[in-house]
Amino acid sequence: MKSGNSRLRERLHEIIFEADTWEGKLFDLVIMALIVISTLVVIIESVDWIGVKFGRTLYLLEWGFTAIFTLEFLLRLYTVKRPMRYVFSFFGFIDLLSVIPAYVGLIIPGAQSLIAIRALRLIRIFRVFKLGYFLKEGFVIVGALRASRAKITVFLTFILLSIIVIGAIMYLVEGGMNDDFSSIPKSMYWAIVTLTTVGYGDITPITGFGQFLSALVMIMGYAVIAVPTGIVSSELIQATKKVSTNTQACPACSNQGHDDDANFCKYCGSKLHEVTP
Amino acid sequence: MKSGNSRLRERLHEIIFEADTWEGKLFDLVIMALIVISTLVVIIESVDWIGVKFGRTLYLLEWGFTAIFTLEFLLRLYTVKRPMRYVFSFFGFIDLLSVIPAYVGLIIPGAQSLIAIRALRLIRIFRVFKLGYFLKEGFVIVGALRASRAKITVFLTFILLSIIVIGAIMYLVEGGMNDDFSSIPKSMYWAIVTLTTVGYGDITPITGFGQFLSALVMIMGYAVIAVPTGIVSSELIQATKKVSTNTQACPACSNQGHDDDANFCKYCGSKLHEVTP
Amino acid sequence: MKSGNSRLRERLHEIIFEADTWEGKLFDLVIMALIVISTLVVIIESVDWIGVKFGRTLYLLEWGFTAIFTLEFLLRLYTVKRPMRYVFSFFGFIDLLSVIPAYVGLIIPGAQSLIAIRALRLIRIFRVFKLGYFLKEGFVIVGALRASRAKITVFLTFILLSIIVIGAIMYLVEGGMNDDFSSIPKSMYWAIVTLTTVGYGDITPITGFGQFLSALVMIMGYAVIAVPTGIVSSELIQATKKVSTNTQACPACSNQGHDDDANFCKYCGSKLHEVTP
Amino acid sequence: MKSGNSRLRERLHEIIFEADTWEGKLFDLVIMALIVISTLVVIIESVDWIGVKFGRTLYLLEWGFTAIFTLEFLLRLYTVKRPMRYVFSFFGFIDLLSVIPAYVGLIIPGAQSLIAIRALRLIRIFRVFKLGYFLKEGFVIVGALRASRAKITVFLTFILLSIIVIGAIMYLVEGGMNDDFSSIPKSMYWAIVTLTTVGYGDITPITGFGQFLSALVMIMGYAVIAVPTGIVSSELIQATKKVSTNTQACPACSNQGHDDDANFCKYCGSKLHEVTP
Repeated sequence: MKSGNSRLRERLHEIIFEADTWEGKLFDLVIMALIVISTLVVIIESVDWIGVKFGRTLYLLEWGFTAIFTLEFLLRLYTVKRPMRYVFSFFGFIDLLSVIPAYVGLIIPGAQSLIAIRALRLIRIFRVFKLGYFLKEGFVIVGALRASRAKITVFLTFILLSIIVIGAIMYLVEGGMNDDFSSIPKSMYWAIVTLTTVGYGDITPITGFGQFLSALVMIMGYAVIAVPTGIVSSELIQATKKVSTNTQACPACSNQGHDDDANFCKYCGSKLHEVTP
Repeated sequence: MKSGNSRLRERLHEIIFEADTWEGKLFDLVIMALIVISTLVVIIESVDWIGVKFGRTLYLLEWGFTAIFTLEFLLRLYTVKRPMRYVFSFFGFIDLLSVIPAYVGLIIPGAQSLIAIRALRLIRIFRVFKLGYFLKEGFVIVGALRASRAKITVFLTFILLSIIVIGAIMYLVEGGMNDDFSSIPKSMYWAIVTLTTVGYGDITPITGFGQFLSALVMIMGYAVIAVPTGIVSSELIQATKKVSTNTQACPACSNQGHDDDANFCKYCGSKLHEVTP
Repeated sequence: MKSGNSRLRERLHEIIFEADTWEGKLFDLVIMALIVISTLVVIIESVDWIGVKFGRTLYLLEWGFTAIFTLEFLLRLYTVKRPMRYVFSFFGFIDLLSVIPAYVGLIIPGAQSLIAIRALRLIRIFRVFKLGYFLKEGFVIVGALRASRAKITVFLTFILLSIIVIGAIMYLVEGGMNDDFSSIPKSMYWAIVTLTTVGYGDITPITGFGQFLSALVMIMGYAVIAVPTGIVSSELIQATKKVSTNTQACPACSNQGHDDDANFCKYCGSKLHEVTP
Repeated sequence: MKSGNSRLRERLHEIIFEADTWEGKLFDLVIMALIVISTLVVIIESVDWIGVKFGRTLYLLEWGFTAIFTLEFLLRLYTVKRPMRYVFSFFGFIDLLSVIPAYVGLIIPGAQSLIAIRALRLIRIFRVFKLGYFLKEGFVIVGALRASRAKITVFLTFILLSIIVIGAIMYLVEGGMNDDFSSIPKSMYWAIVTLTTVGYGDITPITGFGQFLSALVMIMGYAVIAVPTGIVSSELIQATKKVSTNTQACPACSNQGHDDDANFCKYCGSKLHEVTP
């Protein structure tokens, strides 16, 4: 027989972690709404004239939100069976990260702006609203990125080494004449800004030879930007194919590769099994 | 027996909404030409020295166009059977939007520059000139974008949340030393400018640590820009495949959409014609 | 019997238009070299201090080149059977364009810098050096672009109309406060700079609402840049497939779809015909 | 019988060039660590205040590293059978390049910053740590780029010629009014910055007509950036397909690389095993 305490924990777990009962759904909706409002408050508070005018109100409001989220986090810790496992799970870690900055802000002024990290908790939105299709499509993207992990690692290693070499060369070429390239780290920052085609223009070459080298780097970047796109595209095409493949085999000739809307085998004309999707 | 009034309405409907009779075609051509000229007038009028020199003429001209388009809109309302349904259709809404700014401009000065919205009415051009092939290809694009809607929504949600977090972190890091990052919304604007690789350079990090974080954001953006491209590419490849299939029709049930290697109809099991490639 | 005149014309045609005899090859090589040198001369001449120092020499040199190319063009006209057809062909037109600017420069100073157009004549390089593989691959690209012509036209129409609307809205929002957006054409220029992710930063929004709208435009541009890439990717994949398809059919079971290195039918095991590539 | 000298060389070769014994692995790890530290030292040394404060220490440290790498290079030369072949191999050349700048820096001040080139030696990391999967995926990328070499060459030739023509036109249009376009090489630099969508904004058109032409260039760049991406994507898809095929081996001739729908070996015509998917 379960103790009342244990039953309370189970009930709370159902409300806090699940969204299948109406209380669970309500809880999640309220938390989601609070996250949105609290994130907006942090963002708005940082604007100068708003901070001056409504600073005190927003400050109190923010502490109210932090109190609620702290309580929620403690409740989660209480109801979950293995608290440490929860804390080090993806969502548990974000839950923790979204209350800590407020307290750190008491010691290190400014740190409370990191409260905005709690916006990441909204990723749960697809699960709470049971948007299964969106979740599935999200997993297709994540799957494609995971499948291309090795390719992207090799690619980024190559890019990183290129950036060091390009940075050193540009520092040598421009360094003396151009304050923008006054150190290799700065030149490397420029190389990243250029290779990724962001191109702020806060650091630009001024010597003719420097501009010539930059042009080479840009054209290299041009070819290079095609690589990650190609990697992800080809994986996504793979992933989309895998999802849409029909595994039906003809009962007569055993051939496969039938379309989802096929009633008869396209190779021998026999009736296929009825599929209950 | 139809009344004369009803016959007039039908006739007008044919001229205004369709492009199959020569009157209908002429009407559409004239309207198209007026849209092009009127849009050019609004654009040109906004240029300083032209506004000063020809302002009065262009102003009168623009009111002439607005009068014509208002009359046309009223005629459309009169001839169509369900006016409200027309107004809330895609093209009806654009038709309405392309006359309203002129009148709003009487109250709120400047609003009349939104007359340029009437350029959107030119989307009809492919239908009026019966450019069926272009329309079909346009639908392939729209179809591919629609099919990737869920993936893109998940992706944009992730990007939006990242922008909030990046904005908050950069505000914390650069905020004190750099007026460019004086608030979280400004930092978020910078994050968008950077992640999309637009890179105006109106807001740039100046501290070493800020530049280091920016470099990480750019490299992340580099990998991330590959995702929407991959999504749309894979959908377009799917869509192109579907469109480009085999034109064979089953001799028994007349269904189409057979694979190139099909010998039997997948819908009714009848033998298909032998194809001599 | 051919007259001497006609035989001379034929001989000249062989030398000038073809690259199969050693004289023809030599002629093409000399012309190519002259094009490269002449283009370099025009480019270098425009640099201030070089223009001052070597202006006279380079000027005479350039007229020498122009004389040679004019003579060459007249010879081409003389030897070709239908001169007008040649002039209006792709290469004929470029040949003409590469001599005209020198003469126009006598009347309109500066126009002679357009001599650089003659660089386009170097496209012939792949044909002259018989780089058949490169030519073929080039045609695959051109073919893919041609196949996606309709999609790209529809896409660019949509982009153009968007630019007009975005330009008008930003002019309304920023126009009063920001000299950068002082007219709709300028705003449209900004919209193009932003949507293509070039992002010079010569024109940037300064109001909060303007920056918010810009952020939307950038994110839209983000999704939108995926479309042409997707279009060209899917066409190139199609094109690559078409090129690599083997048309062999099994002599026993008539099945197709064999790999290029197949000796036996993968469906029935019969010997395939020997292919002489 | 081998002489002691020859046995020493073999032993050293095993340690220096291979990573299969524990001494070989240790050697590689130590060298890798030294490369990372030495690269960091060069990068950090270039920062102004660090250079002033720790310049002397870092200078001595750097010479220490150079001494070690020089010794290592000489040992490699000694143990390898054909020294010249090693020097002109990819990795041998990088090994050489990573010691030379230190000595050149004695004559030409500043050149020692090119020591950063030794970062490229880290490419070996995937081999040393036996990250076979990463190596394989890296080869897939390299293979795809190699397969698209011809297409990319044709494409870059076209881009290069376009840049010359665009540069000459913009020089003509903007040259007189705008110091940014004071020569054709500068205009060409601008064309590259624009076409690659880097868009620094250090050189921007100011005349209306110049901005109009720039807009055309950008939209052209928009379509054009799709081409290399499409090329690499389609090749990567091809490459992924080739890699991911069927692992069946013919029971008669042991050849692999059969299609999924093959019943008979395409090389010898023998029956393949039935596959139970």
